[in-house]
Amino acid sequence: MNSIVRQREPFRWDGVPLLAYKADPAEARFEGVTRQVLFGDALELGVELRYFEVAAGGHTTLEQHEHVHAVMIVRGVGRCLVGDKVHEVAPHDLVSVPPHTWHQFRASDHEPLGFLCLVRCDRDRPRRPDAGDLERLRADPAIAAFIRA
Amino acid sequence: MNSIVRQREPFRWDGVPLLAYKADPAEARFEGVTRQVLFGDALELGVELRYFEVAAGGHTTLEQHEHVHAVMIVRGVGRCLVGDKVHEVAPHDLVSVPPHTWHQFRASDHEPLGFLCLVRCDRDRPRRPDAGDLERLRADPAIAAFIRA
Repeated sequence: MNSIVRQREPFRWDGVPLLAYKADPAEARFEGVTRQVLFGDALELGVELRYFEVAAGGHTTLEQHEHVHAVMIVRGVGRCLVGDKVHEVAPHDLVSVPPHTWHQFRASDHEPLGFLCLVRCDRDRPRRPDAGDLERLRADPAIAAFIRA
Repeated sequence: MNSIVRQREPFRWDGVPLLAYKADPAEARFEGVTRQVLFGDALELGVELRYFEVAAGGHTTLEQHEHVHAVMIVRGVGRCLVGDKVHEVAPHDLVSVPPHTWHQFRASDHEPLGFLCLVRCDRDRPRRPDAGDLERLRADPAIAAFIRA
């Protein structure tokens, strides 16, 4: 384990691979998202700290799961759905996603949105909305206008 | 639990108290350090994410412990000792402090140094160097010049 891992250009780190957001892009609905694992299993903290970046105009997958997310925005501005509310977010805002809560992040149209996301190493797989979930979500016009599914 | 906690001025968050770095300043040698807990026990991740800020010219306590630190620099530049090396650090550099490893952070003389620090909730108390530890540390001139103890 190196004690120091340097940022060598904005939001890219020495030796930290730039990964696809999801292993199976065909299955999950997202656009323009990358993932980098900044702190993983090696430290035995029981959590991983990842950096996600959503390209301008892009979005993460609309999903929910039992595990929680602790998020800190670090680049750009955007919006996120957490539960039944859409929030504007900007650098250093903190977002908590409780268990079994629909969530989705969208970048603005003109710049990427980057955020740190803390999760347990041992976590369940996300669930995507079915037709009934989408109908319930879209009953709220603000959510209907926001979500990409 | 609020889903969103906004940064309301640089590196200060709505409803997040600005705390003393250590409960007993007389006992621990540090200068100009504050602490804010950004994500705590409530999320049940088993870890806390804290933001520390070291004022210009200040430093954290020289210490070691069994628990590890996962650190990301987010404000200013400075230097840190990890084990037997002193490193320059700048925004978004990542620092891993393994178990039982001497460490200390120092801000530059002209601006504060701010960093995120991830720790287990359940952790041991830090140990400060005794006279023998300091003698061993100071055998290296670079470390002798760096540490404040």
